[in-house]
Amino acid sequence: MNMAAPITRLRGETVTLAHGGGGRAMRDLIDEIFVAAFRPDAMEDQARLTHAALAKPGARLAFTTDSFVVTPLEFPGGDIGTLAVCGTVNDLAAGGAEPLWLSASFIIEEGMPFATLRRIVASMVREAAAAGVRIATGDTKVVERGSADGLFITTSGVGVIRAGRDLRAERIREGDVALVNGVLADHGATILAARGDLMVSTDIASDCRPLNGVMEAVLAAAPNARAARDATRGGLASALNEMAETAGVSVELDEAALPIRAEVKGVCEILGLDPLDLANEGALVVFVPTDEAESALAAMRAVPGGEDACAVGRAVTRGPVPVTMRTAFGGARIVDMLVGEQLPRIC
Amino acid sequence: MNMAAPITRLRGETVTLAHGGGGRAMRDLIDEIFVAAFRPDAMEDQARLTHAALAKPGARLAFTTDSFVVTPLEFPGGDIGTLAVCGTVNDLAAGGAEPLWLSASFIIEEGMPFATLRRIVASMVREAAAAGVRIATGDTKVVERGSADGLFITTSGVGVIRAGRDLRAERIREGDVALVNGVLADHGATILAARGDLMVSTDIASDCRPLNGVMEAVLAAAPNARAARDATRGGLASALNEMAETAGVSVELDEAALPIRAEVKGVCEILGLDPLDLANEGALVVFVPTDEAESALAAMRAVPGGEDACAVGRAVTRGPVPVTMRTAFGGARIVDMLVGEQLPRIC
Repeated sequence: MNMAAPITRLRGETVTLAHGGGGRAMRDLIDEIFVAAFRPDAMEDQARLTHAALAKPGARLAFTTDSFVVTPLEFPGGDIGTLAVCGTVNDLAAGGAEPLWLSASFIIEEGMPFATLRRIVASMVREAAAAGVRIATGDTKVVERGSADGLFITTSGVGVIRAGRDLRAERIREGDVALVNGVLADHGATILAARGDLMVSTDIASDCRPLNGVMEAVLAAAPNARAARDATRGGLASALNEMAETAGVSVELDEAALPIRAEVKGVCEILGLDPLDLANEGALVVFVPTDEAESALAAMRAVPGGEDACAVGRAVTRGPVPVTMRTAFGGARIVDMLVGEQLPRIC
Repeated sequence: MNMAAPITRLRGETVTLAHGGGGRAMRDLIDEIFVAAFRPDAMEDQARLTHAALAKPGARLAFTTDSFVVTPLEFPGGDIGTLAVCGTVNDLAAGGAEPLWLSASFIIEEGMPFATLRRIVASMVREAAAAGVRIATGDTKVVERGSADGLFITTSGVGVIRAGRDLRAERIREGDVALVNGVLADHGATILAARGDLMVSTDIASDCRPLNGVMEAVLAAAPNARAARDATRGGLASALNEMAETAGVSVELDEAALPIRAEVKGVCEILGLDPLDLANEGALVVFVPTDEAESALAAMRAVPGGEDACAVGRAVTRGPVPVTMRTAFGGARIVDMLVGEQLPRIC
């Protein structure tokens, strides 16, 4: 990769198949859109990385990946680039890892405007800076018009889990309290609205944001925190069902405690959707022992992204179903895992 | 992920949008196609990894990523899964890293037959075993019919570079010898033929294979090896142009020495293609000092994938162009970097 490439070689306004060919045009695209944004020294064909934390006794490496296929590419509160960085950072954070490095691989449909690509890359740079991670390596492929819908981004993340940290759903015990860091279902509702699937206009925005700061705050305040999950595709319902099944407990939610905007509830009622199934991109669910719940909540509320933190339920003896909810009217209902398709390409 | 899922839940014969929804159908797809193949303990949402080599003083982490969009998905000598594993393993190996772990993320078009997916996943398992790497984490997304062409796979790789290893194009010196491990241009010619773009039928097969064994053999025999590259998209021509430019030398190739099948040369003549631009998926180019060239060649020839190793040229004083070739008739021609599009979706 020629690091000193002038910003003048990229011709036209859109990506062509030539930009995927492995030759000079591809190098120009990479230099002028990606390397220029991610900094010349920050995106190599192969990154060679060192970090003192990796060499510490007992440290483990965390490794995760996600592909992003959201449509539309840009929406209130973010874009596919925001998601691609936050999604992978949050996966790492929820596992108790300090996120260090990301890779970013782009599958671009011929005809994609350079301007859109530049905006999305700028979002990635901003979110990576906010999360304190480095986009260390990448790839681009270009496919013919009609062979992909605009742009898909796959990020992988590498982080380090300090010795002694052991967040796993298996560790959840009866009595543990389930905390969330903030308002639920905004991302799903935003994408619905952005697609024009709603007849009403809303001012909801995606909750997409990096959560490693919130997670570090929780772990400092609640050293015996059991497990965490970022409740993305499938929403809080799927995250809790998986955790409950793995832990061999049931989870009882308190409907009155769930932080969901009235506007989002209204939209869900009209469309027959359960807000607990709607995707989040900035929502963590963390199980902590009862005696650490208050301090964990206070710690979350003190950091950006955790202002609306609250307790939403608790782990109880394993019952006939993994997750139930006490309704505002005193009843109880099953909160099942999402079955079938709800909203394709939500992230 | 429920590791004890029975192999009976996946209904129908093809992937539907429900398999991307984040709920139960997605879990069934992941359990029965991916986890079942990659082993229950080998593919987690987030892998937590330890390796003694990472903690050794001076060791560096290597991190790389590539998206694969090849069409057709299956071709003589391999499939998109073979490419996805070998491509990332070879990227790591060419940088002097020992490949350890891969991530694999799948973007699947609605309607993809489960049977095709299973064959491709089986190829990945086989190549990962051959390379001695573990597929440690993954993701799946499903997009609507027409929004992606069948299947795209993105792999990322993590490896460890031992202390003291320093393979970089900057280290190439005048006089150094360029070695390749085997026959060139087979992959590109195979994909051309598989698309029916050739009127002739051929029995060429892709050279796709993991090269970490070849690379270790070279490094053992030629401790002062300067730099290596896997000559994929853009072929040997693009790899050498990039290396020469980075090193500030020129490279002189010897046409008579280039290992290219007569059949592939013939195809290229008919179509007006330069075999040096054709993609390889199992070709390394390595620069070594003159006095280590013979031992490096002998070492390559002794391991699988290196049987046809040969010297193809050498680094010379920087001239007006980065790469030239002495032709069989005693002339010389410029070997330029691929300009524009040659074969879209070759890998």
